[in-house]
Amino acid sequence: MINFAILGFGVVGSGVYELSLNNKETVTKKVGKDVNVSRILVRSDKEHDAKHLFTKDFTDILNDGNIQVAVETMGGLEPAFTYTKSLLEAGIHVVTSNKELVATHGKELQEAATLAGVSYLYEGSVGGGIPIIRPLQNCLAANEITEVFGILNGTTNYILTQMKEHGLSFEKALKSAQELGYAESDPTADIEGFDTQRKISILASLAFGEDIGLENIPTTGISALTLKDLESAEAEGSSIKLVGRAWIENGQPKASVEPVKVPKSSPLSTVSSVNNAIVVRANPLGEVMFYGQGAGKEPTASAVMADVISVAASFT
Amino acid sequence: MINFAILGFGVVGSGVYELSLNNKETVTKKVGKDVNVSRILVRSDKEHDAKHLFTKDFTDILNDGNIQVAVETMGGLEPAFTYTKSLLEAGIHVVTSNKELVATHGKELQEAATLAGVSYLYEGSVGGGIPIIRPLQNCLAANEITEVFGILNGTTNYILTQMKEHGLSFEKALKSAQELGYAESDPTADIEGFDTQRKISILASLAFGEDIGLENIPTTGISALTLKDLESAEAEGSSIKLVGRAWIENGQPKASVEPVKVPKSSPLSTVSSVNNAIVVRANPLGEVMFYGQGAGKEPTASAVMADVISVAASFT
Repeated sequence: MINFAILGFGVVGSGVYELSLNNKETVTKKVGKDVNVSRILVRSDKEHDAKHLFTKDFTDILNDGNIQVAVETMGGLEPAFTYTKSLLEAGIHVVTSNKELVATHGKELQEAATLAGVSYLYEGSVGGGIPIIRPLQNCLAANEITEVFGILNGTTNYILTQMKEHGLSFEKALKSAQELGYAESDPTADIEGFDTQRKISILASLAFGEDIGLENIPTTGISALTLKDLESAEAEGSSIKLVGRAWIENGQPKASVEPVKVPKSSPLSTVSSVNNAIVVRANPLGEVMFYGQGAGKEPTASAVMADVISVAASFT
Repeated sequence: MINFAILGFGVVGSGVYELSLNNKETVTKKVGKDVNVSRILVRSDKEHDAKHLFTKDFTDILNDGNIQVAVETMGGLEPAFTYTKSLLEAGIHVVTSNKELVATHGKELQEAATLAGVSYLYEGSVGGGIPIIRPLQNCLAANEITEVFGILNGTTNYILTQMKEHGLSFEKALKSAQELGYAESDPTADIEGFDTQRKISILASLAFGEDIGLENIPTTGISALTLKDLESAEAEGSSIKLVGRAWIENGQPKASVEPVKVPKSSPLSTVSSVNNAIVVRANPLGEVMFYGQGAGKEPTASAVMADVISVAASFT
């Protein structure tokens, strides 16, 4: 039996818990052993089926002695960073969906993991349930990757789709996204492009083996876009999309985030609503695209759980 | 240093050889050691840079003693099957792009590999360079896959695209595909849907953990399609595509291959020319799509080499 802990019991954390129960048979078959959630770090108590697993004390998990893997779905930099580092140093594998942490301290945490002989995995940090981290690491391993770009934020893509299809202003489309739970009450990270910035930073680091640094990624969001901008792009046969892009220029990795006029002939132009799509250009492979629901409880839980299974299956 | 052999030096085999030279630095970095082609099984001698590695005798490779991985790109059932089985039983990992062999004897060869403690990997057998085998096995591991479908044959998709875009008859479009090297002089396997049948059989087996059997996959190709069929589908707002599909019906895996009217709203409808696209529906993930060039020397070599790297990186 393999025990894992969940740190943070919000949307993604509870999704991982539910998935571990609902698809128990599938998971057990893949790993060859039972894989159980044995502890859950919560901020405050609440009524829940899993209440008997709750703790508010991180050291309960760190010192448990029977936890081999921790899933960090707290989000934010602290205390996620301190907890993750302590876990890795204690020889506990960590799986995360926390893109802010991976984009900011991924390299340091990866090094701590390597030093301790454990894994730090983050398939859930980019593209929700779309497999992209592992394909970049493994399936394209023989390639020189020259460019990665795509629609990496579902909230802004939903807003742009609503504006275009229903003739809404930016403000009205944002309000609709908030009402549906696609945008947070403080939507800054999404609409100003910071979420996309973090994700393209993670992809660039994987693609080029080098950190660009968030501060070196010029970033423009969609909050200044008007319905008129979208309509005039449409008249030219294009759709405006918020695109994160990373490429090699004079031997150096570069990245940017900005609204881009995507021609109708591009597969990116058909990506609507909360979907994401990521295009990778590589030599000698050519171009491949990965497409799907880029956020949300269940897709992200699916990606996190795949990493847990991958770690668990490696135990002998 | 890790030595591997290539069996069959046609389009894909020579592509793997060239890739191992051209991207040597990338490959060495990923594996942590040099990865070299040390032997190549050819049918007949010819002038080539790699001629010093050529042999016409399979036992030279089987008994070499310093070959840890063999790449089988011979195609067809025999002698590929006998050679692959001998290699696996001798403790040599095998990587292949031979979809006919995987679709027909994949289960038996997988079992032989497991018994011998080695790997039998076949990312290159479906979708050319598009990562699909490994994502199905690993990235969607926590999911119950309910359906897999897509455009799996570049030749027929090229023919259908030519018919539609240039108003060609099936015969003329086929001729153009042959002239460009997209279709073989005997195009039966492509145009009658057998190539798609093999690929959907492989995907179904991975998705559902059970072999359907090629004989249980009803298969219709595109040779009976007329320009008029395509035009009347267009008039209805659809595109005709050759679609392989596998799904669960009453708890049993099923599969089929046939020309399908794909509505313009479907991402499959925009897949043109020799490109492939594979859609996976899974619970709780939802829908993801993988898109790219589905055949050809370089994309397929990229997939094969990724498997070689994966095996090589596992050596301690």
